[in-house]
Amino acid sequence: MSKPDKLKARAPRGFADRGPAELAATERMLAAIREVYELYGFEGVETPFVEYTDALGKFLPDQDRPNEGVFSFQDDDEQWLSLRYDLTAPLARYVAENFDALPKPYRSYRAGWVFRNEKPGPGRFRQFMQFDADTVGAASVAADAEICMMAADTLEKVGIKRGDFLIKVNNRKVLDGVLEAIGLGGDDKAGQRLTVLRAIDKLDRLGPEGVRQLLGAGRKDESGDFTKGAQLAPEAIERVLAFTAAKGADNASTVENLRQVVGSSARGLEGANELAEIATLVAASGYEDRTIIDPSVVRGLEYYTGPVYEAELTFQVADEDGRPVRFGSVGGGGRYDGLVGRFRSEPVPATGFSIGVSRLFSALRMVNSPIVSGAQMPGPVVVLVMDKDQVAAYQRMVSTLRSNGIRAELYLGSSGMKAQMKYADKRQSPCAIIQGSNERERGEVEIKDLIEGAKAAEAIASNAEWKAARPAQFSVPEAKLVDAVRDVLSRHVG
Amino acid sequence: MSKPDKLKARAPRGFADRGPAELAATERMLAAIREVYELYGFEGVETPFVEYTDALGKFLPDQDRPNEGVFSFQDDDEQWLSLRYDLTAPLARYVAENFDALPKPYRSYRAGWVFRNEKPGPGRFRQFMQFDADTVGAASVAADAEICMMAADTLEKVGIKRGDFLIKVNNRKVLDGVLEAIGLGGDDKAGQRLTVLRAIDKLDRLGPEGVRQLLGAGRKDESGDFTKGAQLAPEAIERVLAFTAAKGADNASTVENLRQVVGSSARGLEGANELAEIATLVAASGYEDRTIIDPSVVRGLEYYTGPVYEAELTFQVADEDGRPVRFGSVGGGGRYDGLVGRFRSEPVPATGFSIGVSRLFSALRMVNSPIVSGAQMPGPVVVLVMDKDQVAAYQRMVSTLRSNGIRAELYLGSSGMKAQMKYADKRQSPCAIIQGSNERERGEVEIKDLIEGAKAAEAIASNAEWKAARPAQFSVPEAKLVDAVRDVLSRHVG
Repeated sequence: MSKPDKLKARAPRGFADRGPAELAATERMLAAIREVYELYGFEGVETPFVEYTDALGKFLPDQDRPNEGVFSFQDDDEQWLSLRYDLTAPLARYVAENFDALPKPYRSYRAGWVFRNEKPGPGRFRQFMQFDADTVGAASVAADAEICMMAADTLEKVGIKRGDFLIKVNNRKVLDGVLEAIGLGGDDKAGQRLTVLRAIDKLDRLGPEGVRQLLGAGRKDESGDFTKGAQLAPEAIERVLAFTAAKGADNASTVENLRQVVGSSARGLEGANELAEIATLVAASGYEDRTIIDPSVVRGLEYYTGPVYEAELTFQVADEDGRPVRFGSVGGGGRYDGLVGRFRSEPVPATGFSIGVSRLFSALRMVNSPIVSGAQMPGPVVVLVMDKDQVAAYQRMVSTLRSNGIRAELYLGSSGMKAQMKYADKRQSPCAIIQGSNERERGEVEIKDLIEGAKAAEAIASNAEWKAARPAQFSVPEAKLVDAVRDVLSRHVG
Repeated sequence: MSKPDKLKARAPRGFADRGPAELAATERMLAAIREVYELYGFEGVETPFVEYTDALGKFLPDQDRPNEGVFSFQDDDEQWLSLRYDLTAPLARYVAENFDALPKPYRSYRAGWVFRNEKPGPGRFRQFMQFDADTVGAASVAADAEICMMAADTLEKVGIKRGDFLIKVNNRKVLDGVLEAIGLGGDDKAGQRLTVLRAIDKLDRLGPEGVRQLLGAGRKDESGDFTKGAQLAPEAIERVLAFTAAKGADNASTVENLRQVVGSSARGLEGANELAEIATLVAASGYEDRTIIDPSVVRGLEYYTGPVYEAELTFQVADEDGRPVRFGSVGGGGRYDGLVGRFRSEPVPATGFSIGVSRLFSALRMVNSPIVSGAQMPGPVVVLVMDKDQVAAYQRMVSTLRSNGIRAELYLGSSGMKAQMKYADKRQSPCAIIQGSNERERGEVEIKDLIEGAKAAEAIASNAEWKAARPAQFSVPEAKLVDAVRDVLSRHVG
């Protein structure tokens, strides 16, 4: 291949590589989440990355055209396949396919990558990880309450302090009641209802005035783009906004406010009663300070049919302009009684929660959670190659260290001493092992303590005694190699 | 949606779901592999599932047409994207993209799913997992020897006994020497060389006679399909077969045989010398019984440029017809000095090893490795719902158990006592917690030991005393719930 033909090495737009620190810390975070989920009786299950497109349906937020937002390709039998865009639709397929064999109710969890064929941007990837937990086959809101409590326990387990997060709960049925009351009931109004839903979902970002515009004629954003509104009458708009603002001083008063807002709607009242039941359940188990009924939470997805919930981190961070804002949502979910039923003749109730793994991971970094900060692995001991014809002997030293459980490497490059020491530094090696012909003749190896060495270099001007007391470089008989390295490693533990 | 419209719930052909037992056992296996790789100084790195198609190249075995065997789709900027089909091509892209920032030599590992757009069959999936380790930037065969030793340590770590596996090593340069000697040198003969390579790679499956046909005119298989051969002359065929049969009584004699076979080819001799060096290195570290030079190993991929290696499990299993066969390969790899260089102006030497995760996992099941057999999680304690208006009280019991680290569940369905006990059995629950109105009035809970209960049911006819001594069902004050459950759990540990 001639030079002008060289390929450009780059990952596709919106796809990212992950290095060792992120991998190790994420792995620890996932293990902690898994531990909580298993304590709750949930069991793991994983589905493949590819599903038949029709099995996935089209349940993406802000997606009105089929397949938009999804990576799809045709199989050789002409059937359309897609990369999964979330973990809920594949779970619904899995449960429907294995319905008789599964225990019911069926509690399960899974962490997995999902894909969105969208325009990438800063912090907006086309491949990202979700960690989901779902209970299928339980109509009782006790299942929803359980998932909210599990979400709270999970956040504490990974290092978010109590008081720094809230699990907010609402109920789509209450919203349905409000919409019914303003004349938006019935199948023919489904599109308008979805527009209302998405307007409310922007409350956090746009505030009540922005949402008021989106519920009415529409809204022009800072860039000048115009979003058409839900075209509600002023009275209807105020009623919807009153719903979103119905939060009281405690869960009981919020439920009371919601009962007022839904008026005579049977569905609305049912929703309010379900929220009252969830409030009772979480209070009985001591979670009432962390699980709050908040009518401003609606979630952007069309398929929710009952309780919806969102895990919000409440501590302050600086936004792009340096202003303090709440960290915000790291996950959410709700009841989706219709999804499994798409495949089966009877309805199958289900509720579930999804954590945005990267988002939670950023939060853990911000609060300096021990899950993240404790994940660093020590660098390897590096055995240098002083004489090329002695590689087998150096290799034997490395093998001896490894078989004694010490992370070790033979320098495998072709450069000289200086480059080898630079390599050891780059690998954050605690010590280097050196055997030139002089040491070999004496049956010794030289051990260079690189951490002490760095300290000594700093101290050299001021404290020559200290340097002498803790030699950064010393020789030992080759038979004592493992013991001597262990001594050096134990100097730098903790 | 009306009934005739119901979707069929099925995973796409060649894609599989994974349940809790397989997930937990695989996770343990991957953790054990990771531990060995980290001991060797390798560090984790992961690339995304999607790459630009041109960055992947076309390096699949038995694939002559571009994109065949790969799932591809066009991005909105018209560029072609593909799901990765292995972990080597993406690593080459990653290293080229981050060349200056990485330590060199650069040792890294990754476990990940890869995708093949091929016809699925029994045990042949279109999504499967590989676990790779690679050293980039080391031209020395010490890097190849290290990976072979690491492969041996890995197999022992996951539970394959010494003596039940071999790491077989060969060198493409020796084969190149043989091919040169029979007049197949030069760029214009690349296609014919690849045909020879693939013929030899089938030695295990077809035996020398089958390979002889594939090296000559061609071969008709049992189904009547004809595969065109490499069209070599009889003398050339015998020379190639002599190469594959050059294994001697030990590594030194094999190297000697190979030196004979390559004759005066400089490249062939270089290959034999490299093998001699690898033999010295593995012997110096005590791996000579597990790392064997075997000229029958060639690996089916075109891109290898030097040493190639294969991890073979040598214990016997029954094939489909019940005949004893060796378990066979669970992974392999080799030196690919050209792959990173596709992106860069200078050549970058590299060598790597890939484990077929499902294949190794099946092997571990066959040898009953503790990695697999010890992965089972105990079932959860199940708190039954006797009175629906007491759900909050039952939920509180569950929360108390969980906050004491005991895996526990509230029954979330709507069925009666009998179905709830069946559910607890299906969940392999160690005990069920029952509180009806009588127990509640006395401030007690009833604990039903389901494991003891099952034993007692077996023993009931023969040994009534035993049953009385270890009651399968007993009451305790509600405040003693956690202690009593712990007692029951400790009965059944181990």
